[in-house]
Amino acid sequence: MSEKHRDERINQGIETMKEMMGASGSDIYEQLKQLHPDVANLVMIGYSDIYSRSGLEKKQRAIVTLTALITQGAYEQLKAHTHTALHVGLKPNEILEVIIQCTAYVGYPRALNSLRVVQEVIKDKGMQIN
Amino acid sequence: MSEKHRDERINQGIETMKEMMGASGSDIYEQLKQLHPDVANLVMIGYSDIYSRSGLEKKQRAIVTLTALITQGAYEQLKAHTHTALHVGLKPNEILEVIIQCTAYVGYPRALNSLRVVQEVIKDKGMQIN
Amino acid sequence: MSEKHRDERINQGIETMKEMMGASGSDIYEQLKQLHPDVANLVMIGYSDIYSRSGLEKKQRAIVTLTALITQGAYEQLKAHTHTALHVGLKPNEILEVIIQCTAYVGYPRALNSLRVVQEVIKDKGMQIN
Amino acid sequence: MSEKHRDERINQGIETMKEMMGASGSDIYEQLKQLHPDVANLVMIGYSDIYSRSGLEKKQRAIVTLTALITQGAYEQLKAHTHTALHVGLKPNEILEVIIQCTAYVGYPRALNSLRVVQEVIKDKGMQIN
Amino acid sequence: MSEKHRDERINQGIETMKEMMGASGSDIYEQLKQLHPDVANLVMIGYSDIYSRSGLEKKQRAIVTLTALITQGAYEQLKAHTHTALHVGLKPNEILEVIIQCTAYVGYPRALNSLRVVQEVIKDKGMQIN
Amino acid sequence: MSEKHRDERINQGIETMKEMMGASGSDIYEQLKQLHPDVANLVMIGYSDIYSRSGLEKKQRAIVTLTALITQGAYEQLKAHTHTALHVGLKPNEILEVIIQCTAYVGYPRALNSLRVVQEVIKDKGMQIN
Repeated sequence: MSEKHRDERINQGIETMKEMMGASGSDIYEQLKQLHPDVANLVMIGYSDIYSRSGLEKKQRAIVTLTALITQGAYEQLKAHTHTALHVGLKPNEILEVIIQCTAYVGYPRALNSLRVVQEVIKDKGMQIN
Repeated sequence: MSEKHRDERINQGIETMKEMMGASGSDIYEQLKQLHPDVANLVMIGYSDIYSRSGLEKKQRAIVTLTALITQGAYEQLKAHTHTALHVGLKPNEILEVIIQCTAYVGYPRALNSLRVVQEVIKDKGMQIN
Repeated sequence: MSEKHRDERINQGIETMKEMMGASGSDIYEQLKQLHPDVANLVMIGYSDIYSRSGLEKKQRAIVTLTALITQGAYEQLKAHTHTALHVGLKPNEILEVIIQCTAYVGYPRALNSLRVVQEVIKDKGMQIN
Repeated sequence: MSEKHRDERINQGIETMKEMMGASGSDIYEQLKQLHPDVANLVMIGYSDIYSRSGLEKKQRAIVTLTALITQGAYEQLKAHTHTALHVGLKPNEILEVIIQCTAYVGYPRALNSLRVVQEVIKDKGMQIN
Repeated sequence: MSEKHRDERINQGIETMKEMMGASGSDIYEQLKQLHPDVANLVMIGYSDIYSRSGLEKKQRAIVTLTALITQGAYEQLKAHTHTALHVGLKPNEILEVIIQCTAYVGYPRALNSLRVVQEVIKDKGMQIN
Repeated sequence: MSEKHRDERINQGIETMKEMMGASGSDIYEQLKQLHPDVANLVMIGYSDIYSRSGLEKKQRAIVTLTALITQGAYEQLKAHTHTALHVGLKPNEILEVIIQCTAYVGYPRALNSLRVVQEVIKDKGMQIN
């Protein structure tokens, strides 16, 4: 793929990330470039490939991502994606419901660990689960 | 818990299952009782505890369950819950989108296995992913 | 389920937790309520549903829980449940044996991580693995 | 390690396997040799290293193995180790209790799949879960 | 991304797949299109993104893929990628060594299941592990 | 196994570890003995059983181990084994390629977490990924 078209896809990824995450969406690309520029590009292109697709609403996509992370016990990304979920309009209470449902499908250990992570994010943002 | 209240909870579970799955919801309890009556009761009570809660719409709950199963590679349950998802109004195309999103968060192996399972259910029902 | 019966189940859970964990069993419910009251109730009711069942001795139930946590790499809960295991009479040496057996069924990475977590708990309690 | 001492360890493994599994314990080594002789030797030596250790009773070791397999969804081995568990004296009802406890720590999908596998073994042996 | 550039990436993926898998590499795209055309394109593009990168030799890439699949217990893909591994020059004995190493890092259950799957492929091809 | 032959196997393990890891290979045994002497012996014997086998080159074995750890999200061991991988001659860039390949087979969450861990080790050693 020519450089020109690669840059188009990366820009598309940054734009899509800002829609999902707010202004900090462009910071992610910069942070990932610090990790490794190739990986940063792959992430942005992949993010665009998925999150700019129609077929699911943003809130539904947020639910998919949260659930995949809770199920895997990927708490670092769960923290970041909780910010995204709140930004696209999922309420704290709705994120709680996702976790409660995971107690049955994933077991209590990962569900409870996830609840702690999510509660921290929600408190940091001055919000609360009703 | 007295027998009377336990039966209330089990009946509530059967009713909730029928809302989510259609008429075959009451078959599940009978099948589970064949497996073991205690387990059948625990499943119905747990199902009621979660699926009769407000806070998430049925389609959103279906998305959580599908994602948790795809992520774990629990294909037997994925098959059953694809029926549920279609019954509560998720379109085949929306289930595809969940799987596509999982390619990034779970990896292609489990996502592709899940797609095969889901496609079989959809074909069996004379539907198709658009 | 009426409030009265729910409270019965929660109290039963607290009592069961105290049998398994000692006096700190009632603290758990208070801590979980800080996390979220609905989750606290679900945990207590679920705990009662399982740990008050006959069929396995307390030490055997402790072995199941430890193994499930080691296998998943759920180290936070492993730390808490090591306290429970010691309280119901599993010796430090017996917990070591569970971990050694897991090296074969789970692999060395999660088994060794688990050993570190367990050793910390045992040292904090002034005990040692013989 | 000299051949003589390697053979000692393998024989020890075969003996230990017969204690745990009954007469079919020596068949396992032959089957594994068909798979690959090096792997057969590693399995027998590893089996001896663990199952001939003191510190846990045979029934407790059976509980560890069953739980590790249920948690991973390793159903093929779960089938074989259910035979072992019954042989060392775990009752069908006790195996059920292990699975029920796993619903909370692992989630219902893998627990229910495990119950189906275990029920088949128990039926094949003309036994039943009470 | 314009259609023209997307087709370039897909063709690149088909070519890369043929290098890794032999002639059947182009069949994969057709089979995946049966599953779903969007998914087929994502897989081909992703395959090209990774397997056409320099930095690791083909045999090393085959080792990464086999290990990731063994570790996850993704046996269906392991079967397909065993064909790929043999095609790029890994010897049956080398694939066995990967599995033996996984006994320590993943545990015996998934390693032994993987060995069965790999042995079937090797027998079907009239080869054997020395 | 007699004490004399056990010591041979343990010494063999220490020697093998030094080949793979450099001088710090003998420290590992001492550290593990602090954890528990039986476990230390099992680890050394197992390490020797696997890493002193022919059939795969050291760099290939390092790739297997890294991939198994990335796939499981076993970041503590990944840190240690990154040192080993660099010591046997894998370049930082080659370790990056393993991680990039894992994005497709394992998903981005564990791959990105792994990249952070690996980057820290590489920076601590005054090296960099080109």
